[in-house]
Amino acid sequence: MALTSYGDPAGCKRYIFYRKRSFMNIKTNSNFHNIKETYLFSEIASRVRRYSAENPEKVLIRLGIGDVTLPLAPVVVSAMSDAAQEMGRGDTFRGYPPEAGYEFLRQAIADHYRDNNAEIKLSEIFVSDGAKSDLGNFVDILGANDVLIPDPVYPVYVDSNLMNGNIITLIKGSRENGFLPMPDAIGEKKAYVIYICSPNNPTGAAYNGEQLAAWVNYALETGSLIIYDSAYEAFITDELPHTIYGIEGADKCAVEICSFSKFAGFTGVRCGWTVVPEGLVSDDGTSLNKMWFRRQSTKFNGVSYPVQRAAEAALSKAGMHQCLANIDYYRRNAAMIADVLDRKGIFYTGGKNSPYIWLLCPDNMGSWEFFDKLLNEAQIVGTPGEGFGKAGEGYFRLTAFGTAENTAEACRRLESLL
Amino acid sequence: MALTSYGDPAGCKRYIFYRKRSFMNIKTNSNFHNIKETYLFSEIASRVRRYSAENPEKVLIRLGIGDVTLPLAPVVVSAMSDAAQEMGRGDTFRGYPPEAGYEFLRQAIADHYRDNNAEIKLSEIFVSDGAKSDLGNFVDILGANDVLIPDPVYPVYVDSNLMNGNIITLIKGSRENGFLPMPDAIGEKKAYVIYICSPNNPTGAAYNGEQLAAWVNYALETGSLIIYDSAYEAFITDELPHTIYGIEGADKCAVEICSFSKFAGFTGVRCGWTVVPEGLVSDDGTSLNKMWFRRQSTKFNGVSYPVQRAAEAALSKAGMHQCLANIDYYRRNAAMIADVLDRKGIFYTGGKNSPYIWLLCPDNMGSWEFFDKLLNEAQIVGTPGEGFGKAGEGYFRLTAFGTAENTAEACRRLESLL
Repeated sequence: MALTSYGDPAGCKRYIFYRKRSFMNIKTNSNFHNIKETYLFSEIASRVRRYSAENPEKVLIRLGIGDVTLPLAPVVVSAMSDAAQEMGRGDTFRGYPPEAGYEFLRQAIADHYRDNNAEIKLSEIFVSDGAKSDLGNFVDILGANDVLIPDPVYPVYVDSNLMNGNIITLIKGSRENGFLPMPDAIGEKKAYVIYICSPNNPTGAAYNGEQLAAWVNYALETGSLIIYDSAYEAFITDELPHTIYGIEGADKCAVEICSFSKFAGFTGVRCGWTVVPEGLVSDDGTSLNKMWFRRQSTKFNGVSYPVQRAAEAALSKAGMHQCLANIDYYRRNAAMIADVLDRKGIFYTGGKNSPYIWLLCPDNMGSWEFFDKLLNEAQIVGTPGEGFGKAGEGYFRLTAFGTAENTAEACRRLESLL
Repeated sequence: MALTSYGDPAGCKRYIFYRKRSFMNIKTNSNFHNIKETYLFSEIASRVRRYSAENPEKVLIRLGIGDVTLPLAPVVVSAMSDAAQEMGRGDTFRGYPPEAGYEFLRQAIADHYRDNNAEIKLSEIFVSDGAKSDLGNFVDILGANDVLIPDPVYPVYVDSNLMNGNIITLIKGSRENGFLPMPDAIGEKKAYVIYICSPNNPTGAAYNGEQLAAWVNYALETGSLIIYDSAYEAFITDELPHTIYGIEGADKCAVEICSFSKFAGFTGVRCGWTVVPEGLVSDDGTSLNKMWFRRQSTKFNGVSYPVQRAAEAALSKAGMHQCLANIDYYRRNAAMIADVLDRKGIFYTGGKNSPYIWLLCPDNMGSWEFFDKLLNEAQIVGTPGEGFGKAGEGYFRLTAFGTAENTAEACRRLESLL
């Protein structure tokens, strides 16, 4: 592998004196200039650093992260290490995986949908390295459309569309609509690419069947495409749809992007999937399913075999049991926090059907003002709502991904602070 | 996880009667209409199926695939399964990885470059799930440039640029230039985004230092960007550069995309990396390094932790030793095939510095004509050259990724056939 000297190195060096400029003459994607640099988490980090430096004796409780903390389920670990061993034996080694995912995993995902009363063909399922990749890359197969995105929301929807130069219309979440904006709030009734995240990140609010049906109806009526992000569906406890395909007609207007990250704790393992129904046909008669397959088989080479075996294990009977036990642990944390806010009469969304609690900052405090108060007076680190969009100003996100002990202690501190 | 009934299902159903059309009103990426559907491998598969059905007693030898066949190195397997176990314990579990890769792996890659006499900063290294993803996604940060691509070549360069609507100029490889086209063959001397794959897929031809320096010089002189695909560098045996950063000035004009797929047999594990030097600045003063980081942190969420540990192990002293032993195995296969062609006086490129042998079809046969002859008379499956571009017509690709026994038998058959 060592770089060996080649022919006449001097012969190479003499060329560089032709260098005429310090810039290249190639064009970059100018749409990148329209993306805001997000300083949210670096600003949080620096305020926390400063506080800890000044108060080395204080113990902080971090309820800001959206990342899981419990270890992987035992069946998942075994499946992944067994698959790694398989890759080390000549008779069981596997090379390039199918771009859309191994049939064993797509079958497990299809069976999972069937358990949820939704019929999805294997040819409609595309396994990927995570929901973020698919959410970001899906714009590759779309043209210049008007895009409708709820505010506040997971920043990837906005940024990936800005990178493609698309026109974005924000639809505002608020206390009035319980952070569940509905189609009747849309100004101009026309075809949009509509992003829906339910249960929502960051608000934890989740649409019920009738509300989702209203969105599906709007899409069918206007010829819109819904990109449905169901990454948090495993946290649903109320009688709400776990998939948009539980709504009749969704297979004619909606793509669904889901993930093993929150359900099975795969944030560090990386696996998700996208459903592109064969019934999705664009205005020029193009099949979105065929386009997405072409995109994926051109710009993607499939998911690691051990990771796909791990994902299959998470969907097995034992896997579901072990993964849902972890989900229940986080749910109990969320409930503890929600109880405090209930007793204090503070408005919030989430807390159930979601690992997130989205609360109105007390006494009309700003997001950052409340961040500093929580940090200084209760040593709790959360996330200012305005980091998720303008409509998040004055709101604050706490997460249920801490340990039960820390969450309980945080609740005691909140009890006395609020 | 079960989809529970919600509120009033009838309330949902009534909406769908608003459905007005069978098509959506959203626009898709019309550039996809310019991409040729590739029937190469499906056509190969169907001809092989037909032949096997008619000749069930015949034993086929497959030298068509570009996929590795030897199992992973033992140290790689241990590292991957150990990391899987870590993910199952609370004290060693890891959530979201850094988008650009863990420092331990970027450090191992930087050390690897240092061994090759190239100084690369950690901030210039971006770990990914494979070279194909990066080659396909890199166009995201580029604008509408003239693109220069050698012919024949790995189809991803052409397809991913067509998807973005870029204008492509092909630069022809031929027997005359040994399938190593040089800048002097460029019609209009101007700034291009230039794709270079060396050692080349499919021809196996590899540029020497002076030839690469000529390309670097052209790029520096015109302000072009070189996208250098070094996925096959581990197969280099002659005194040739293993990285374009062995050429002075390359850090001002070249991105390098490399992979663990061929070096460590990671085609089924999925890991690669891209180097974007901080010295790459576009005409409007934009840093390509910053843009790529923004693209990756928006549309990608990092590589699986066990996979990154496996990749780190492949670059360890023991890993290099075990991986290069596999490379040597393939090299001996390539040499066997090359020997036959040498004795028969058949023109070819590759066979050394590459797992590929790219040969001129004897007796002016067409690629598919020779494919049928090899299949029918020697029961050998290869790949017709025209599958890699117009300049591949009349050429044929054999690979060294078979077993030593099958390759030896194939050589005996070629010996008597040619």
